[in-house]
Amino acid sequence: MGEAKERGVLRRVLAQLRPATAAKVGPGDDSAVLALGGDLVVTSDTMIEGPDFRLAWHGADEAGCGFDLGWKLAATNLSDIAAMGAVPVGLTVSLACPKDTPVELLEGIARGLDAACRALAPGCGVVGGDLGTSPVLFAAVTALGDMRGLSPVLRSGAKAGDTVAYAGDLGLAGIGLARLFSEAAESDGTAHSRTLGLLRERYPASIAAQLAPIPPIALGVASAAAGATAMMDVSDGLSLDAARLGEASGVALALDSALLEAAFGMQRGESVTVAAMLTGGEDHGLLATFASGTTLPSGFSQIGTVQSADPGRARILLDGQPFEPRGWDPYGVLPPGA
Amino acid sequence: MGEAKERGVLRRVLAQLRPATAAKVGPGDDSAVLALGGDLVVTSDTMIEGPDFRLAWHGADEAGCGFDLGWKLAATNLSDIAAMGAVPVGLTVSLACPKDTPVELLEGIARGLDAACRALAPGCGVVGGDLGTSPVLFAAVTALGDMRGLSPVLRSGAKAGDTVAYAGDLGLAGIGLARLFSEAAESDGTAHSRTLGLLRERYPASIAAQLAPIPPIALGVASAAAGATAMMDVSDGLSLDAARLGEASGVALALDSALLEAAFGMQRGESVTVAAMLTGGEDHGLLATFASGTTLPSGFSQIGTVQSADPGRARILLDGQPFEPRGWDPYGVLPPGA
Repeated sequence: MGEAKERGVLRRVLAQLRPATAAKVGPGDDSAVLALGGDLVVTSDTMIEGPDFRLAWHGADEAGCGFDLGWKLAATNLSDIAAMGAVPVGLTVSLACPKDTPVELLEGIARGLDAACRALAPGCGVVGGDLGTSPVLFAAVTALGDMRGLSPVLRSGAKAGDTVAYAGDLGLAGIGLARLFSEAAESDGTAHSRTLGLLRERYPASIAAQLAPIPPIALGVASAAAGATAMMDVSDGLSLDAARLGEASGVALALDSALLEAAFGMQRGESVTVAAMLTGGEDHGLLATFASGTTLPSGFSQIGTVQSADPGRARILLDGQPFEPRGWDPYGVLPPGA
Repeated sequence: MGEAKERGVLRRVLAQLRPATAAKVGPGDDSAVLALGGDLVVTSDTMIEGPDFRLAWHGADEAGCGFDLGWKLAATNLSDIAAMGAVPVGLTVSLACPKDTPVELLEGIARGLDAACRALAPGCGVVGGDLGTSPVLFAAVTALGDMRGLSPVLRSGAKAGDTVAYAGDLGLAGIGLARLFSEAAESDGTAHSRTLGLLRERYPASIAAQLAPIPPIALGVASAAAGATAMMDVSDGLSLDAARLGEASGVALALDSALLEAAFGMQRGESVTVAAMLTGGEDHGLLATFASGTTLPSGFSQIGTVQSADPGRARILLDGQPFEPRGWDPYGVLPPGA
C-alpha cells in the first residue's frame, strides 16, 4: 500500500463503518466527542499477527477476508466493557499493516468491526482511530462504555456464600484453537487455510468460537442491574481467571463439575469436557457472583459457590478439592497465593 | 523479554505511573472507570519504530532511555484533546515490543508518559493499556478528555473576517528532524546517537521540539472559553493543516509573513524562517480562529485573517498570494480543491 494511496484506503475503510449513537462528533476532526449518561468505562487490547492471530485462519486469501478478525477485535474489547456492567458506546481502532496489504483485507476488518458492534452492542460503533504501516498486522482497539448511573461491578466484591455463575461459550474457543493447530497448520506450526472450510463444517461451534466469538455483551448490564457482587471477562481460562477474581475478593471459588457438565457439557452440538471448560482460554464469557438467592439473569448458569479463604490457600476448589489454576497467562504462571 | 518475566515487567512499568484524578477504577480490573463533568472527547494515535520514531534518538542506549519517547506519545495525543477545547483526563497505552527489549526502556517510556501528563495536563494519567510482543516497538495511545460543559471547537466554524491565531512552537520540530537526519544518521539514513549530545547542546530548542515537544495543552480550554470559532492541532505543517481547516470551514486563511516573522522568527534562541513555519510538521501547536476583536488568550499570536473563498479556490494565501499547501501528509498529497 503506497503512501499516495492511503487517503483512498482510509475512505474505503471508513465507508464500512456506521456512526455510533452517542457520537456528537465522529471521525474527521482532531478527536471524536461522545455524550454519556454516566461514568466512562475504558479498556484497551491489542492483537498482533503471529502471537494473537494468524491471517490464514481469518480468510486472508478469500473474499470477505478479514471480517472474522474485525469481529473478534470488537467482540473481545466489548466484553471487557460488559464485564464492568456498562453499555459499550464506541471503539477507537489503530491499525498498522505491511505496505503490500490488500485494501480488501482492511475493508473486511472494518466490516467485521461494524457488524460485531451492531450485533452485540447496538448503538456502538467506531468513533476514531488511525492507519499506519508496520512489518506485521497490528490492531490496537480501545473500547468505551457508559455506566448510565449504575455502579461498576469489580472483581473484588465476591462474598462467602455468593452464587458463582457463568454466561457464554466455555471451553469451545480453546478446543477450536487446538483443532486449528492440529488440522490447519504445517508441522512447524505455520497456519494454512487448505482445510479451514472442512473444519468449519465439521466443528462449526468451536471454530467459530475461536475465530469470531459471540460474547454475551448485553448480560453485563443485566448482571449489574441484578446486583452482581463481582464480575469479570473470562479470557485466559476459567480456572485462572476465577482464581484472579478469588484473589481480588479474598475468597475461594468452589466449582461443581456436575453443574459445569449439566450447563456446558454440550454447546451447540459439540461436547466439551470439564477439563476443557476449566483451562481453555479466549472464552470471553462473563464470570459473575451474586448474593445467594438472587434470580440469575437469563443466560447465566450456576457453576459453584463462593467460600471464605485465607490468604495463600487455594482460590479454586473443584468438587471440594483444591484445583491448580491453569490457562493462558500472558504474564507467566500465577505464583502460589498470588 | 521472556513470557515468564512479563508480569514483573508490567509491575515495574505500572510503578512509574501515578493515578488520574478522574479515575474511580484504575488499571487492574477489566476496564478503568472515570467520572466526567461533560461530554467525552477521544482520540487515538500510533507511533511505530521506523516510520514514526528512531530509538537511537530517544536515548535507547543511555540511562533514562525512552523518557522522551513516552513524553512525545503523551504530548501529541493530549494535543488532539486540547484542540477540541477539552481537558485531558486519561490515556490508555498499548505497547508491543521485541522480546529482547530492556525493561529499562519500557520503564523510561512510562516515566515519560507520566511526566508529560503532570507537566502538560495535571490530573491526567495513564488509566489502562496492555503489553505485548512484536517485531518492532509499537505504541498506540488513546487520549480521553472532558468537555466540562463547553461545546467542542471544530475545524468547521471559521468565518470570513475572523482572526487567525497560533500558539506553540512553529517550525522548530521540522528543523530539529532535518538536523537529526543530517547530523545524527548514517549516509543510508539509519539513526545513530553518537552526535546526539552535541546536537542537543547546539540546538536545544529544535532538537527538544522534535524529540519531546511541549504543546500548549492548557490553551485548548482557554480558546474554547474565549469563543474560538474553529481550532485544530497542527501536526503535518501549518500550511497543510490550515488548508484542511479552510476546507472544513469553506473559507480561505490569509496568512501574513510579517506577523509570522514577528511572533515566531526567533523561538528560544533559534531563528526560524517563514518557509520552515509553513511547511515544518510535528509542531503540535494550536491553530485557532476567533471573531474579529476578540482578546486572544495569552500565548496566542495573530498570524492572519479569514477570508471568504469559493470551492476549488486557494485555501491558503500568503501576503495576498495563493500558497500551495505543503507539509507531511500521511495520506498523500492533498488534491487541488480537496
